[in-house]
Amino acid sequence: MKTTIRILLMPVLALSASIAVSVSAGAQSDPLPSWNDGANKQAIVSFVEAVTSQDGPDFVTPGDRVATFDNDGTLWVEHPMYTQLAFALDRVKALAPQHPEWKTTHPFQSVLEGDMEALGKSGMKGLMEIIGATHAGMNTAEFEKITSDWISTAKHPKFDKLYTSLVYQPMLELMDYLRANGFKTYIVSGGGIEFMRPWTEKIYGIPPEQVVGSSIVTEYKVIDGIPSLMRTPKIAFLDDKEGKPVGILTHIGKRPIAAFGNSDGDYQMLQWTTAGPGKRLGMFVHHDDANREYAYDRETHIGTLNKGLDDALKEGRHIISMKNDWKQIFPE
Amino acid sequence: MKTTIRILLMPVLALSASIAVSVSAGAQSDPLPSWNDGANKQAIVSFVEAVTSQDGPDFVTPGDRVATFDNDGTLWVEHPMYTQLAFALDRVKALAPQHPEWKTTHPFQSVLEGDMEALGKSGMKGLMEIIGATHAGMNTAEFEKITSDWISTAKHPKFDKLYTSLVYQPMLELMDYLRANGFKTYIVSGGGIEFMRPWTEKIYGIPPEQVVGSSIVTEYKVIDGIPSLMRTPKIAFLDDKEGKPVGILTHIGKRPIAAFGNSDGDYQMLQWTTAGPGKRLGMFVHHDDANREYAYDRETHIGTLNKGLDDALKEGRHIISMKNDWKQIFPE
Repeated sequence: MKTTIRILLMPVLALSASIAVSVSAGAQSDPLPSWNDGANKQAIVSFVEAVTSQDGPDFVTPGDRVATFDNDGTLWVEHPMYTQLAFALDRVKALAPQHPEWKTTHPFQSVLEGDMEALGKSGMKGLMEIIGATHAGMNTAEFEKITSDWISTAKHPKFDKLYTSLVYQPMLELMDYLRANGFKTYIVSGGGIEFMRPWTEKIYGIPPEQVVGSSIVTEYKVIDGIPSLMRTPKIAFLDDKEGKPVGILTHIGKRPIAAFGNSDGDYQMLQWTTAGPGKRLGMFVHHDDANREYAYDRETHIGTLNKGLDDALKEGRHIISMKNDWKQIFPE
Repeated sequence: MKTTIRILLMPVLALSASIAVSVSAGAQSDPLPSWNDGANKQAIVSFVEAVTSQDGPDFVTPGDRVATFDNDGTLWVEHPMYTQLAFALDRVKALAPQHPEWKTTHPFQSVLEGDMEALGKSGMKGLMEIIGATHAGMNTAEFEKITSDWISTAKHPKFDKLYTSLVYQPMLELMDYLRANGFKTYIVSGGGIEFMRPWTEKIYGIPPEQVVGSSIVTEYKVIDGIPSLMRTPKIAFLDDKEGKPVGILTHIGKRPIAAFGNSDGDYQMLQWTTAGPGKRLGMFVHHDDANREYAYDRETHIGTLNKGLDDALKEGRHIISMKNDWKQIFPE
């Protein structure tokens, strides 16, 4: 008897449930509360509505809803220097007692003396020596522990906060909004892939397998019967500029339909993304907020945005103004 | 009033629903119907139950339930030659009219004359020339079309069936069973990553971003204003032997807890997987069924299984006998 009532009531209940769902969807709160109303917020919402409207001309199946995000300067602060460079310099200082020769050997001497100008002059060769000394010569598990320990305590010089709390609240909301609409979100960064992986899931909700980055040659070795992945000082892949579409191919195997960056290092990623067929979205975060964060674009050495600004009006491309588009920069 | 009835009935309905679910779970059909009962089937089921038992000592969170599968000889037939080699040879024949010089130039002449012995003698140098002529010099979209067209019509010489129908039914069930238990399944193959990606989702339920394979150097170029990813004849990465744990690191960033292979090319992948802490599963498919498929192991040139057999009894490793463990080889 109870079963009969249940069966008879089922259609009614199903109907009530579907009404309840659609009412709650209609009344849902703003998915991008830290974004000021304006053309950019509207562009995001219109894009998402277009590609998710099943009966619309721009519908994209969920498996092809791929969105890629640069990291430094797009998801978190990159001035006055890339966080990974701050890590490398701290690491040189931590390792210095084991390397007395560094006191009189550049580029290490420059780091220990805090002489950034001399360090800059050591160029790519100097940088590679520092990477070799701080990022290689250990296995992947050891490197993960070193980076995890560092990032859980290191603080940004201007804001005096953990680097992982200096992420952009509007971009966190954007990633959540895209994921809630069936997108798979990826980081595609010039930074080291193994430097990022230990914390991207906790901070951005992006798991290790959705992180694309630069890498060094890693070798599989069995040492004293224990298999290890050993990090060598040789560069394997640079995930920057022309490298970004290649990194996307390698890791994702699909062309994104949305891409977000902040510098000319992201130019090709946005170009590749927006050149595809159908509705596309490409956005550069413009650092124009000296009060709340930093203001820089064409003239800076870190995160230079030049070609990106020149092309601001191209189809599907947008420039996000941190100053005007973002109500809030960092999470509370 | 209707609402009131609904609310009052809710707990009853919820209870009925949960009873229905648990009854159906208890009475559920065998998830591995093509596997004969025995130690190997039991090892798979015990492993899955152990890592998914929330209160058990071997519980693994869903995000870390990573299972990797070799492709050739593990998921589909690899004799008498790798399918990708059959593709390359067919491609040489298709392109021959545009290359009259191939009639008198090895290794192409050997291919056109069907002289496999001479082709074999041309070694790695000859193979690289064939790859250069058949896999490079076009963009990724063109290559995808070429491979998709080929695989939709090419047939296996012994079985006279599409290659994509010569996949192993027991392994399809195994992948489904793992996915139903929260695993993420990956292909980790020595084959070309872009050769596999066009069909892995349809055949195995594995999307492009979960395919790891060998690759050639691909370059981002803007040609006549149109961005392209151009395939070059230079090898970028060989996803075989020691390369497999490296490919897994690059693409997944996590150590698998289960790995499946069939040859010594998979040895390091199984070694890396089973050497990790906690419950692990490593299985080699042993081709010992000359009647229904092929029988080969230590002496063959394709899919040699030597070290894998020697280590058969190591912790967490298993040898699957196609003859004894599998009721059925191919889907109906």
